[in-house]
Amino acid sequence: MSKIIVQKYGGSSLHDTRAILAVAERISASHSDEISIVAVVSAMGSTTDELTNLASQLNKTPDRRELDLLLSTGELVSCTLTTMALQAIGKPSKSLSGWQAGIYTDNRYGRAQIKDIDISPIMNELNVGNIVIIAGFQGIEDGSDITTLGRGGSDTTAVAIAAALNAERCEIYTDVEGIYSADPRLVPYAKKLNHISYEEMLEMASYGAKMHPRSIELAMTYNVPIYVASSFNYNEGTLIHTDLFSKMPPINEHRKKVTSIATTHGYTKFTLTQVPNRAGLASQIFEPLSEKDISVDEISMNAERGNTTDLTFTVDSVDRDKTNDVLEQLKTTLDAGGVIISDNLAKISVIGTGMREESGYAALMFTTLASKGINIDLITTSEIRITCLIDAADLEAGAKSLHEAFELD
Amino acid sequence: MSKIIVQKYGGSSLHDTRAILAVAERISASHSDEISIVAVVSAMGSTTDELTNLASQLNKTPDRRELDLLLSTGELVSCTLTTMALQAIGKPSKSLSGWQAGIYTDNRYGRAQIKDIDISPIMNELNVGNIVIIAGFQGIEDGSDITTLGRGGSDTTAVAIAAALNAERCEIYTDVEGIYSADPRLVPYAKKLNHISYEEMLEMASYGAKMHPRSIELAMTYNVPIYVASSFNYNEGTLIHTDLFSKMPPINEHRKKVTSIATTHGYTKFTLTQVPNRAGLASQIFEPLSEKDISVDEISMNAERGNTTDLTFTVDSVDRDKTNDVLEQLKTTLDAGGVIISDNLAKISVIGTGMREESGYAALMFTTLASKGINIDLITTSEIRITCLIDAADLEAGAKSLHEAFELD
Repeated sequence: MSKIIVQKYGGSSLHDTRAILAVAERISASHSDEISIVAVVSAMGSTTDELTNLASQLNKTPDRRELDLLLSTGELVSCTLTTMALQAIGKPSKSLSGWQAGIYTDNRYGRAQIKDIDISPIMNELNVGNIVIIAGFQGIEDGSDITTLGRGGSDTTAVAIAAALNAERCEIYTDVEGIYSADPRLVPYAKKLNHISYEEMLEMASYGAKMHPRSIELAMTYNVPIYVASSFNYNEGTLIHTDLFSKMPPINEHRKKVTSIATTHGYTKFTLTQVPNRAGLASQIFEPLSEKDISVDEISMNAERGNTTDLTFTVDSVDRDKTNDVLEQLKTTLDAGGVIISDNLAKISVIGTGMREESGYAALMFTTLASKGINIDLITTSEIRITCLIDAADLEAGAKSLHEAFELD
Repeated sequence: MSKIIVQKYGGSSLHDTRAILAVAERISASHSDEISIVAVVSAMGSTTDELTNLASQLNKTPDRRELDLLLSTGELVSCTLTTMALQAIGKPSKSLSGWQAGIYTDNRYGRAQIKDIDISPIMNELNVGNIVIIAGFQGIEDGSDITTLGRGGSDTTAVAIAAALNAERCEIYTDVEGIYSADPRLVPYAKKLNHISYEEMLEMASYGAKMHPRSIELAMTYNVPIYVASSFNYNEGTLIHTDLFSKMPPINEHRKKVTSIATTHGYTKFTLTQVPNRAGLASQIFEPLSEKDISVDEISMNAERGNTTDLTFTVDSVDRDKTNDVLEQLKTTLDAGGVIISDNLAKISVIGTGMREESGYAALMFTTLASKGINIDLITTSEIRITCLIDAADLEAGAKSLHEAFELD
């Protein structure tokens, strides 16, 4: 029995037929008598956006069941073309759609979760020597409707298949060379990390890195090592796994407690001021937002019974106007003082598993930002992360100063 | 139980979102409490050609199994978009891919034939009041691979579904207003036929009209009336059915024996000269052509045992060079005298069920063409058709003169 490696190629690595041929050559080079390859592909380039745009021309609120069947075609195109390219260079291979690959999901169209994978269709192809190319981002629910997995879907497909097949590892090929100590576009001297833990990656995925948290969670649950690297060169990428220490030098006195600075932008902050506090206030506010499909990001509320309170939260800026509509209605219903909006906000985070053992990181972060004259709008923390909401214009200066302060250079 | 009408919309009727919305409005207008609608759609505009082109960039001879899965996406896009458009104008509807609609085929990828239709998925949707939009041109074989039906596939899907559902009729909406007594681009005063028999339509489909013979054969076998009309206006189209006489005036002394002049072009004629005749000669020639996927059109061979013979046949001009390669090899193997090629040929046919009762039609056809100085390269006939191979440059003059000679004006 040969080893199995699962690979995943993103849309930017498959933007035209030339790029698809290059991916086919990479897959072919990875394949050998000892190593079986299953490759999961995203839709070519901006196909998914183009299909979504066509749908919205015909229907402002397209039915999700229809939209999922429509969007699933993007990966069918890329997986069949990749298979044809492999066959053209002499490698036996076969494409499988999500449902052909035995990927069963619940029926939450547009954000379905994988319930089960029947590995026999994939194993049947591997056993006859085929490289298997799988359409990412999609599956089938019990009633034989096609579903899509939503954001980060193809990564999730790849990790889930790697877990189901008990693969050696899951390789995510993308347009960056791996995971960095900070976004190289903001901090040009940011360092590529050769190793990172699932927990750190999970925080970074939520706070700026290009992977979706759900695929990291899945990998952590099933202990699937993930290797993130560029599809455009053969430089070493980043391995995300549990046993960090086994791969590190035995003497490690100077191990850094902070691994990286994560950055994201495109947030709008809303504050509902002087809201008379009462039981169930939070649900009265967040329920109507959820009904409008607005995903609330960070929430800050410090309520005392019987008094009025200010309630602050952030949303993705694309939801700004929808959120404002909801709040203007709520202002009257809840007898609030007013609605304050702050646009163009960004989040900057310091992440590292070492942080849970020692204190002082928050203070260093706040001092460093203050020394650059950067105002902090909101603070949230996890065990291994501290996040500050700041003005987007301050993001680059903030990232550089924190990268230096935490000695990541 | 309401009546069921099956409609089919071709790619030129669905070339962009505006056209799709217009189709949705037509479907909506046909639908009522008494009439259930099942609509079969082709891929938008030139999608199938574009996908085929992408495939050929990666693989000169793409695997048919992969190509079928790739091409099937074109109709998935158009059927989901049409459904969304119907929902946007307030009509409950649901899309079904070929396999979701229960269309089972054999496994001859690229030219699969429908083996069975499980009508329950369609009936389930009709029973809850949905308009059902089905992806044409595709099905599924036993092993759960997607297949496509080849040329004329969506027409075949529509007729087969109409037969399975015992529908009132199958309406084919296209970019022409119906079936004409001759191609209106050649004979501007050609008349639209309100009625035509399956047999006549079958000959015309093979010899110039826009429908594929297989869908006509299927309709004839299951006695499904087909109505061909424009998707761009509401002018009366052509009804293709069996009981012609019941729809015609009772006294019919002057019923025309010839219904129409059919025209096609794009043929190349090959003649292999002075071939020593022997048993199995035809198969020695046509077997290698078939292996190269060259479809031979008309064949003329008049062989006497023991002598040499000339063997003539026509092919679609796109296969010209492939055919020449095969014949150059065969010339040596078979010790033939030479290969003669005639390009830019066309076929002109006189069609009518009345022809089988009387003679003299062939003579009138040949005399008419001769009077215009048109040379005849090859003659083939069926019970209700006479076809002459002529120079493509003579097609218009030939069609006009025959239209007049057979009193179709």
